[in-house]
Amino acid sequence: MNIGIIGGGQLARMMMLAGYPLGFRFVALDPAANACAAPLGKLIQADYDDERALRELAAWADVVTFEFENVPDKSLRFLSEHLPVFPPAHALSLSQDRLKEKELFRELGIPTPKFKAVDCLSDLTTASDEFGLPLILKTRKLGYDGKGQIRIHSRDAMASACEILGKTGLIVEEFVRFEREVSIIAVRSRAGHPGYYPLSENTHGDGILRWALSRPEDPKQSIAEQYIDRILARLDYVGILALELFERNGELLANEIAPRVHNSGHWTIEGAEISQFENHLRAVAGLPTGSTAAKGYSAMVNFIGALPAKSAVLAHPEIHFHAYGKDPRPGRKVGHATVNASSLAQLHNQIKGLLEISGASNPNELETPRCGSDRSSS
Amino acid sequence: MNIGIIGGGQLARMMMLAGYPLGFRFVALDPAANACAAPLGKLIQADYDDERALRELAAWADVVTFEFENVPDKSLRFLSEHLPVFPPAHALSLSQDRLKEKELFRELGIPTPKFKAVDCLSDLTTASDEFGLPLILKTRKLGYDGKGQIRIHSRDAMASACEILGKTGLIVEEFVRFEREVSIIAVRSRAGHPGYYPLSENTHGDGILRWALSRPEDPKQSIAEQYIDRILARLDYVGILALELFERNGELLANEIAPRVHNSGHWTIEGAEISQFENHLRAVAGLPTGSTAAKGYSAMVNFIGALPAKSAVLAHPEIHFHAYGKDPRPGRKVGHATVNASSLAQLHNQIKGLLEISGASNPNELETPRCGSDRSSS
Repeated sequence: MNIGIIGGGQLARMMMLAGYPLGFRFVALDPAANACAAPLGKLIQADYDDERALRELAAWADVVTFEFENVPDKSLRFLSEHLPVFPPAHALSLSQDRLKEKELFRELGIPTPKFKAVDCLSDLTTASDEFGLPLILKTRKLGYDGKGQIRIHSRDAMASACEILGKTGLIVEEFVRFEREVSIIAVRSRAGHPGYYPLSENTHGDGILRWALSRPEDPKQSIAEQYIDRILARLDYVGILALELFERNGELLANEIAPRVHNSGHWTIEGAEISQFENHLRAVAGLPTGSTAAKGYSAMVNFIGALPAKSAVLAHPEIHFHAYGKDPRPGRKVGHATVNASSLAQLHNQIKGLLEISGASNPNELETPRCGSDRSSS
Repeated sequence: MNIGIIGGGQLARMMMLAGYPLGFRFVALDPAANACAAPLGKLIQADYDDERALRELAAWADVVTFEFENVPDKSLRFLSEHLPVFPPAHALSLSQDRLKEKELFRELGIPTPKFKAVDCLSDLTTASDEFGLPLILKTRKLGYDGKGQIRIHSRDAMASACEILGKTGLIVEEFVRFEREVSIIAVRSRAGHPGYYPLSENTHGDGILRWALSRPEDPKQSIAEQYIDRILARLDYVGILALELFERNGELLANEIAPRVHNSGHWTIEGAEISQFENHLRAVAGLPTGSTAAKGYSAMVNFIGALPAKSAVLAHPEIHFHAYGKDPRPGRKVGHATVNASSLAQLHNQIKGLLEISGASNPNELETPRCGSDRSSS
């Protein structure tokens, strides 16, 4: 079976690495000749809305998936007329609109931070009366890694925030002082069978995921599964779905979904029986999905901007290293590393070591209380 | 770093899958346009002794390794003049000559089956007086998967065996009635640090490896490590080395070495902290090697001739499936599957299930006493 992937970044690359053992072959559509998945498969180098390229993709592939949210709606509709596309296009559309996404959470009885659709400026004033300050003002569409959103600390700052983000099509949310951020990653086969990975506990910096850890038997596992299950069923979903949540006063609040393999699930490559990448492909290809069971405690640290020296990382014999084949650039995810442990204490030690190696974060963050919700996808 | 691989079969394919996360890029030299590693990297399609192709390989790669033993000596010597080649050429030469290999074992104090160099026919008669019957007559060179060898049960059969294999350059060995066949796989870094995987216990049929299992704390682990360590040191070895042994009356007898990643170590992809494929590449690339520790009990079953139905295999949520992207052909290794377990009993059940799925072997072989040594590499 030939699988087409819209986007040729590290998520496509890791899908390919997971998919060759299943006997799949791959083509990626990406505008960049040096897309980091390019060496591993066939590349169609073109814009995501290039009709000739989409035709080539449809001709070569048996099924299409995507590795990022901002795929043009029109492209996905075009492809869907020619071959199966999973996850379903309506799930992608939903994830592209922060307002619709939150409204779905509400409709499904999944708690969320307080939110409302706003057109600047009078609506914002009303929201600050209802939710208090600070507020998070976001564009409904096209936000990622903390982009397309502004934290508003005072009424005076509202006008300039509206200037920057535009005056219509916005959503405002209460600022959540959370104890922690978690994500649950689930898979659903074409036959409708769901599977759930253990929760990831995620730490962000500057709107970008820095590291994630997963422990067996997280106390919030069961409720998170119930929430994502409602979404999977409603969307008649196929593939991997990530749901990001805040925990505040012991309650989970849904922040957003990502209809794709997710950075907070990279630990599953070594830390779960079958990884999120393989399970995504199995679902997309119409095969039975595999076990999502975890192997002990796992953590993943992102390498942001540049890779640490490879020999320094590999000098630790149990660290798993993942380079994405990207050139260094500030703020860019260029790789990650994973560790596994048989206890939380051992895992924390390993994370500290990894953060020191990565040089990108302060290991003391492990003890730092975190708060704020002014970021988007990861 | 760019890594060149001589041979584009499933071993090259699995090396590539293990090596991309380390940031490597790959080129394979193979005469077949549809070599199963071809979709994953660059392919130089040419014969193994094509000088233009070897020049291209040397120009593109930073280091070269190989995935099979019968690489022409001349090609390896040519490449060695231009760039580093690991494992070292003298280790490859040694493995190509069954007599020299056995002589090295003897020299290093590693027990082997009785053997002697023979020119037919009078030497054979002498050997049968010394070793008894049956005997195994083998060509010194170019044997694999049970080819290039004949089991001789009577004096009458000697003449025809000599006819078939040629009259000179042969080796004759006693027939070993072993309790089991095992292999130890070791890695040695460029800096000379060795690491050892837990023993694999191997079951062959028709000269081809059918399945392998690995249990923690095999009683023969320590002595096998001592033996392979002598070979690693003597050869100033770099990369993965496999040593196949028979166990007879509780004693290990060395059968042969393979200076490459080895079929009996495929379980390390899921069953060891760092797989044989990744550790081979780390060593070849001059990086520190990683942990060879096992994760519980593991087993691997080869798919010979044709793949079983993918959906039937994947219906077992904990089976790891590996297709090599090959066309079916009788006797051809086209894929394998791996299972992990926390006990030997659980593992045996899983192996039985897998053998049933594979349709290629009789699960009752698990209980069948095995004997004979009339096979070669795997």
